[in-house]
Formats: sequence, structure tokens, C-alpha cells
Amino acid sequence: MVRDDRITTHVALVSRALGCEEVFMTEVDTSITQTVAEVNKRWGGGSGFKIEIVREWKNLVENWKKGGGKVVHLTMYGIEINDTKISHLRQENRILVVIGAAKVPRQMYDLADYNIAIRNQPHSEVAALAIFLDRIFKGKQFEKHFNDAKLKIIPMTRGKKVVGFG
Amino acid sequence: MVRDDRITTHVALVSRALGCEEVFMTEVDTSITQTVAEVNKRWGGGSGFKIEIVREWKNLVENWKKGGGKVVHLTMYGIEINDTKISHLRQENRILVVIGAAKVPRQMYDLADYNIAIRNQPHSEVAALAIFLDRIFKGKQFEKHFNDAKLKIIPMTRGKKVVGFG
Repeated sequence: MVRDDRITTHVALVSRALGCEEVFMTEVDTSITQTVAEVNKRWGGGSGFKIEIVREWKNLVENWKKGGGKVVHLTMYGIEINDTKISHLRQENRILVVIGAAKVPRQMYDLADYNIAIRNQPHSEVAALAIFLDRIFKGKQFEKHFNDAKLKIIPMTRGKKVVGFG
Repeated sequence: MVRDDRITTHVALVSRALGCEEVFMTEVDTSITQTVAEVNKRWGGGSGFKIEIVREWKNLVENWKKGGGKVVHLTMYGIEINDTKISHLRQENRILVVIGAAKVPRQMYDLADYNIAIRNQPHSEVAALAIFLDRIFKGKQFEKHFNDAKLKIIPMTRGKKVVGFG
């Protein structure tokens, strides 16, 4: 779906940092794949995270379901996440999370196994994705290790500390 | 701090939807305050949420601390939130959450009571804010009622349902 490049970059980086394996995009500026490639190179984990361009979102969603995966569509019109049995979702092996800009086709609502709202209020698909991932992984995604990083942050109570490798 | 307008709008809307009372900005396009005013008018809660333009971020932070409030700076260089005693923070009455674009002045790291990382990996200040608010409010921010809404979503498993008032 057509979206703002800056926002799309945030979506891609959030997906990478918070435990997703892959991002599918229907339209994408090459600057986004480039930014993510650079982040992978510097901050690691490149082999475990990729971006794929798809022509037809509908084929992707349908094939995902045929393969036994579940589809979660994040939308302000859905059932609030606090009212969703997220423990059921945690038992799934493969989840495709769909987020869209303003105009998501009606078909998406029908194809989704779950239409989930991160509040029934307008805010941000970046924020919705982040909270969904944090809730579903229960914060465990913070423990994921990023292999082959050239840079690594040493957490500090004050200031910045970064160590370089190779 | 100077930032992208689209991202700033997301930050403002996330703050509104997820339980903040006020957003302070040092530089802002009037389109952002206008967008938020329109969202308040349509989706409610205007009286409980405002945006304030401040000239000096440093004065704001120092005065906040003088008034007994705590300052949390979200930065990828800080201590990861999983390693932060967030229960201590929940006991505070007033918390100022600071997020910045790429270049945050060193002084901010020194002035903050807490420099907290929502992962020590680059991603998105919108996502960091969202997860921080969700963690600190334990999802209770979803129960906040938005007064005087003209539109209200009726959560649906499929499709969109919005009711209008007045």
C-alpha cells in the first residue's frame, strides 16, 4: 500500500529490532531497502531479517493462510488488544501482521483471521506494530541476539558507549 | 528538536491515544497542532490533552525536575527497559518523557533521571514511546475515556463501524 517513506522506514526498523523475520512491502522506495541493509551491516542480524517486495498483497495474504499461517490486521476499527486472547496467538507458528496507511481495502478486513485495534483511536501504525510485537513476545524479543554486528551499544545510565568490531 | 513533520504528528497522536496529558515541542509546524485539534474534536478528549510550544527544552526539563517531576529520556544508548525497575517509575506522579531525533544534546543524557532504551538497536522514537507508555500504564491507558467525542468506534471482528454524536 502507498505510504510515506519515512514512516515506512520506521516500520521496517521496528520490525527488525523487535523480532520480526521479514517485511513484505507492495511499494517501496529503494532508499528504504538501502537504509535497512546499512542498519543490518552495522548493527547485525542481517541474515535473520529481510525485506521482500510483493506485487499483490492479496496473493501474499491468501498464500500465507493456505500455508497454515495466521493473519493479524492491525486497525483502529478492530477488537481492542486488551479484549483479545493473545495467548491463543502466541501458540501460532507463523503470524503475518498487516498494517496499512489510511485506505485499507475492505477485503483485508475479511481475509484477516484477527482484526485487532491498539486502541479504537487514531494514532500511528508504527506504534500499533510496536505494542503488538511487545505484547505478543512479552518483551522476550529484547533478548534476540543480532549476529555479525560491527557496532554494539554498551547500555549506560548516562551518555553513549558504542564498541566496534572488525 | 528539529524533526520530520509526519513523524511528529505520529508522536502527538500516540501521546494523545495512549494516556499522556500534554506534549511539549520546541519546533512545530502549525499543521500538527491543527491535526491534533481536529482529532480531539472528532474523537474526543480535547480538554484532557494539549500541545505546548516551548522555546527552550532545557528550561522545561530543569523546571520539571524542580517541581518534583521525573524525567525519562528514551534513547537506544540507555539501560534497556527490561533491565529497568519500572515499578519505581509507576510510583511517580509526574513523568516527562523525552524523545529526540538523531542528534540529542549530551546535556539531555545528564539531566535525565533515567536514560532508557527500548532495545539497544536503532528503530523509531514513535515505537519507543508507544512501548514505554504501554509498559508503564500496563495497558490501563486503553480504558481512558475520551469525552465529548463526535465519533466513536464500535469494535468489530470484521469491517468498520463508527457511530456519530451531535
